[in-house]
Amino acid sequence: MQMSELVRAARSYRRFEQTPISCELLSELVDLARVSASGANIQPLKYVLSYTQETNAKVFPCTAWAGYLKDWPGPEESERPTAYIIILSDPEITKHAGYHPRIAAQTIVLGAGERGDGACMIGSVKRRKLIKDLGIPSAYKIALVIALGVPGEDVVLEDVRKGDDIKYYRDENDVHHVPKRTLEEVIVEAVANRSKH
Amino acid sequence: MQMSELVRAARSYRRFEQTPISCELLSELVDLARVSASGANIQPLKYVLSYTQETNAKVFPCTAWAGYLKDWPGPEESERPTAYIIILSDPEITKHAGYHPRIAAQTIVLGAGERGDGACMIGSVKRRKLIKDLGIPSAYKIALVIALGVPGEDVVLEDVRKGDDIKYYRDENDVHHVPKRTLEEVIVEAVANRSKH
Repeated sequence: MQMSELVRAARSYRRFEQTPISCELLSELVDLARVSASGANIQPLKYVLSYTQETNAKVFPCTAWAGYLKDWPGPEESERPTAYIIILSDPEITKHAGYHPRIAAQTIVLGAGERGDGACMIGSVKRRKLIKDLGIPSAYKIALVIALGVPGEDVVLEDVRKGDDIKYYRDENDVHHVPKRTLEEVIVEAVANRSKH
Repeated sequence: MQMSELVRAARSYRRFEQTPISCELLSELVDLARVSASGANIQPLKYVLSYTQETNAKVFPCTAWAGYLKDWPGPEESERPTAYIIILSDPEITKHAGYHPRIAAQTIVLGAGERGDGACMIGSVKRRKLIKDLGIPSAYKIALVIALGVPGEDVVLEDVRKGDDIKYYRDENDVHHVPKRTLEEVIVEAVANRSKH
């Protein structure tokens, strides 16, 4: 799949079909993140894989979903993620993992999208509870959680005019809409370029 | 190109052939970043494209290169990037662009890699000078700079054993080596998973 198609397919999915995701697939996704760019190549991240009903049931209550959808408390049991990758920072390597977790997360989201799987980066996590409930060695810090599964909802992108609302929403057919600023809005012309025209 | 191949091809390149990169290609790369995940979908980033000799000559002196290579001051004139994408955060949207710039950056790096182009995320930037020299509206803040061009060096990945040095280096044939921690090292088994075995 070409990147232009992949970035559009790899939406944030929040409702999933109940098809299992294998440990092997999760490892392959981590392997994509593992070789990605790392500032000063320090590679401060570690990963915990959750793919059994037992551990998934421990992860889910530690995650918060879709702040803009006030009437939606998150996916019901029949539409919850079937796997999670928990991205940890390793304080033995650095105290500030900084931007590393999101480079890894975007790589994992694209890798999942290529396979037809869906993912959602979740930054709103009950970190201490999750460390404790999963028995993650307490030295690690949770950077974020990526929920994974076979997409169980339709998500569409739409362009938004400058100044209009960028909040995502669900329409009457339960389709999830994501307004994106246009290319014209996000590219700023610098004076130095302008002088060339 | 499959992601497994693409993430390995999309190394951080620091020496380039002097083939121009078009404004259209840069726009396509920004378009990939534009539709990528954004926390609360706020999309706080803006982008400046530099692709002429004139503006490139203003960007380069504002960038710092390859901290580990103490004897290498950065690419010579004949091997410098032929384009840059400067990622800005827009304080009118948020004061803290947080992790957004690196999600965008990784998307751009992979998009460039797919086309056979090379990129390097550069966080060490003379921000005030670059804003001034390029005439970027001063309300914006520079998050990072991505250097781009046709790769003019060989970069190879290698596995590193736990505890060994992760600093990148150049060998006697001027090949750039990047030691990466192994998959076994970066995946942490949680107690909750262990109980299943």
